[in-house]
Amino acid sequence: MASNTSNYKLSATTANLKYNDILPYKTENEAQTREFLNKVIEVLLDFVKASNDRNEKILDFHHPEEMLKLLDLRVPDHGVTLQQLVNDCATTMKYQVKTGHPRFFNQLSSGLDLISMAGEWLTATANTNMFTYEIAPVFILMENVVMTHMRELIGSDWRDGDSILAPGGSISNLYAFLAARHKMFPNYKEKGIATIQGQLVMFTSDQSHYSVKSCASVCGLGTDNCVMVPSDENGRMITRELEKLVIDRKSRGHIPFFVCVTSGTTVLGAFDPINEVADICDKYGMWLHVDAAWGGGLLLSKKYRHPRLSGVERAQSVTWNPHKLMGALLQCSTIHFKEDGLLMSCNQMAADYLFMQDKLYDIKFDTGDKVIQCGRHNDIFKLWLQWRAKGDEGFEKHMDRLMELSEYLVKRIKDQPDKFYLIMEPEMVNVSFWYIPSRLRNMPHSKHREQELGKMCPVLKSRMMQAGTLMVGYQPDDRRPNFFRNIISSAAVTEKDVDFLLNEMDRLGHDL
Amino acid sequence: MASNTSNYKLSATTANLKYNDILPYKTENEAQTREFLNKVIEVLLDFVKASNDRNEKILDFHHPEEMLKLLDLRVPDHGVTLQQLVNDCATTMKYQVKTGHPRFFNQLSSGLDLISMAGEWLTATANTNMFTYEIAPVFILMENVVMTHMRELIGSDWRDGDSILAPGGSISNLYAFLAARHKMFPNYKEKGIATIQGQLVMFTSDQSHYSVKSCASVCGLGTDNCVMVPSDENGRMITRELEKLVIDRKSRGHIPFFVCVTSGTTVLGAFDPINEVADICDKYGMWLHVDAAWGGGLLLSKKYRHPRLSGVERAQSVTWNPHKLMGALLQCSTIHFKEDGLLMSCNQMAADYLFMQDKLYDIKFDTGDKVIQCGRHNDIFKLWLQWRAKGDEGFEKHMDRLMELSEYLVKRIKDQPDKFYLIMEPEMVNVSFWYIPSRLRNMPHSKHREQELGKMCPVLKSRMMQAGTLMVGYQPDDRRPNFFRNIISSAAVTEKDVDFLLNEMDRLGHDL
Repeated sequence: MASNTSNYKLSATTANLKYNDILPYKTENEAQTREFLNKVIEVLLDFVKASNDRNEKILDFHHPEEMLKLLDLRVPDHGVTLQQLVNDCATTMKYQVKTGHPRFFNQLSSGLDLISMAGEWLTATANTNMFTYEIAPVFILMENVVMTHMRELIGSDWRDGDSILAPGGSISNLYAFLAARHKMFPNYKEKGIATIQGQLVMFTSDQSHYSVKSCASVCGLGTDNCVMVPSDENGRMITRELEKLVIDRKSRGHIPFFVCVTSGTTVLGAFDPINEVADICDKYGMWLHVDAAWGGGLLLSKKYRHPRLSGVERAQSVTWNPHKLMGALLQCSTIHFKEDGLLMSCNQMAADYLFMQDKLYDIKFDTGDKVIQCGRHNDIFKLWLQWRAKGDEGFEKHMDRLMELSEYLVKRIKDQPDKFYLIMEPEMVNVSFWYIPSRLRNMPHSKHREQELGKMCPVLKSRMMQAGTLMVGYQPDDRRPNFFRNIISSAAVTEKDVDFLLNEMDRLGHDL
Repeated sequence: MASNTSNYKLSATTANLKYNDILPYKTENEAQTREFLNKVIEVLLDFVKASNDRNEKILDFHHPEEMLKLLDLRVPDHGVTLQQLVNDCATTMKYQVKTGHPRFFNQLSSGLDLISMAGEWLTATANTNMFTYEIAPVFILMENVVMTHMRELIGSDWRDGDSILAPGGSISNLYAFLAARHKMFPNYKEKGIATIQGQLVMFTSDQSHYSVKSCASVCGLGTDNCVMVPSDENGRMITRELEKLVIDRKSRGHIPFFVCVTSGTTVLGAFDPINEVADICDKYGMWLHVDAAWGGGLLLSKKYRHPRLSGVERAQSVTWNPHKLMGALLQCSTIHFKEDGLLMSCNQMAADYLFMQDKLYDIKFDTGDKVIQCGRHNDIFKLWLQWRAKGDEGFEKHMDRLMELSEYLVKRIKDQPDKFYLIMEPEMVNVSFWYIPSRLRNMPHSKHREQELGKMCPVLKSRMMQAGTLMVGYQPDDRRPNFFRNIISSAAVTEKDVDFLLNEMDRLGHDL
């Protein structure tokens, strides 16, 4: 076992030191400090190796109660030794799920991009905050460069817009909502939404991420005023339904002002028709936001960008999470605006005591006033370094490869119609299907069989986790019971892993 | 120069490899992968060494335009080599501000706790998301253990409450606001605040962090309904003013529902009188939130906890940022609630497709439904590891030491009344003062002299940054022009550094 704690022995003198025997407490012990940190790195490099070893399990599953017995998680009265800390690191990694393992197909964010990881190590050591150029000069400039480049990928007239990195796509969507409300109803900031004459209403598809609905709750509209627009059988927003719902709300004296289209839905990976929605937004004077948290990566691919993201340049704001399809480490989420200045006028609270105007340098580089967060984690370096390593070309290859592998999976599913049932042709790397155990193979497909297949998903998933050989997610949706949603978003995956995936499901589930 | 890029040479075979020549692309190149990652670690360990070397500068300042010429920040069409990536890391660190340097007194978050840093390295490599036990089993359990311990430190009847880690104190405060509104007006979630009969009003001191006011903007109240309560000359909320303002708003038919007291204000480090405010909250049925983002660390000190945080256990919610006084790496912010279940009922959007109920394990350990973020960065491991290393005892010593050093600074300032003017006796590690250059030493102190002293702060700060030997923050407040606010929150600081601080200000500024 690579992460066996007994493998990581510090020298006798270092082993029994405590936190206050090393830097910054005892500057004379720089060598021991280095030894300790290098030993932690050994643990991590072995985890990296194991994550890429197909003979290693993805996880060593234990129920929470058992896990609590296996681990010593106490926060003690008196600190432990450096050797114990190294052992703690090794034990933690022993029981951690290897989200970078080639057979981990469970989440939208998977894989372990080692360049991005090196970047995140550096970020930790730099330990700074992204609010001012004063304390994060290089990172602030990198943020400018990368955000400008991403806006150029959205559309040619986006270059002079504005962007910010946020802690996850949900907060990015919140920034879009806030900017839209501020642009259209600038008085609300001081006076509150009670002074707006009429109920604000927003629209999003019934397949969209729940964070859109959450904006309505957080920001005071109420979720009843986040209208869920029906989607077609492939999960795409039905635009004639959108227009009907807008007209209906207007007839009730409400103010439709914000529409979110999703580019890459969470479950089905569907792309709403942006151009059609943009026409409706133009017609009724509504803000168009594109939640491309998941699908945004395809902007990097000439082959797959169209028709999925056609029209994205017509939006006012776009959420795009590099920590998903692009494989940046968690977290790395971006929100982009076509119009510059909105983030600042929307979110600035005139905190002169923090963001002074009389500084040594040009304060246009300070970002603290643009966000509702004040301090912001440095999420740019890992992405910048990755982009240096891959270039646009490397990211394009990565996108095309993930799509190619997903197409291969679809083909292999179709090749085995007795064992697998493909729910729909995917637009992205989300592949939705049922596994069919032996006893149901001769049953004609029906709502009844779907119920039976759905009941098996949690059981088969349990078997995967207990075997530790495979992880694939499942969920129900509003049209069908539980089904598997396979995601290929990791650069570690090959065709052989796709073959393994289907064979392993059959091995674990045929008798269900 | 420790971070000279020419020091970090990869072997000839590894140097010219690209991202897709190492793991996960080429599993046969595990040795080269390790070599690359170890070389990045060398860069980082040298930065750690330099950060702790008092002969090294804190920063090598350049204006943004110059910096852009010194750096190659382009995101290229074609990726660069591993050697170039290592050089990029070295160059980045060369121009990064050493926030862990013993003479960096600039921010509330400073220092470089190496145990926490090791923890953050591990977090990067584990690269997981905190929404489910399924993919973050050990980290979810750690979060439970540490959050329970922190609640116990707040108050004996807080054990069975609830907590969550959030991306910064501003979002933590937002969670408190949302929970309070939800608890008192549960219908707003679906129906919106327009259905609440009366304008909601919140109260906070005029010294509080601007994120409190931001809640009023974000959540639809409007900042006019975030009432700023006057503070006394030490920056503490005047509670009789609070009560007057509450009565005034009630007389206008408004609904006062939320009061934020600050434990450790950003500029002056003041502590609002919690018990007095709690009495008023009890009397008028308002939620009491304590923003102890900054001062919360003192809960760990028997000596300094009282009277500063006396009464904190009477609050309904407490924000407490371990990334400030406790020295955890950025970011690490926590929000605690006395009542369990509120986070879930407030923020849950019933996203069954993500957080299924029919899982292998007890889903009470899943946290995704409690937050508005969906995915959450793992901010617990670095704090847990630090707590293992220090124990409660080590944290208590750390707090007492920071306070002791701050008291030493105050003493040294008072020892030199010709050169320094102490603005007030501090309650915490924020020390507010003016530096007095030669030409103003014989002038009696007056509003006029304050204006002169204030004008010099940006100039002296520029000299510090250009010399690279010292960083201390300055800002104006509502009563006086610019003044210096010194922060000692780093374990690297000693009495000699405090002496250096005052001598260096005098060396750089005497002729101003």
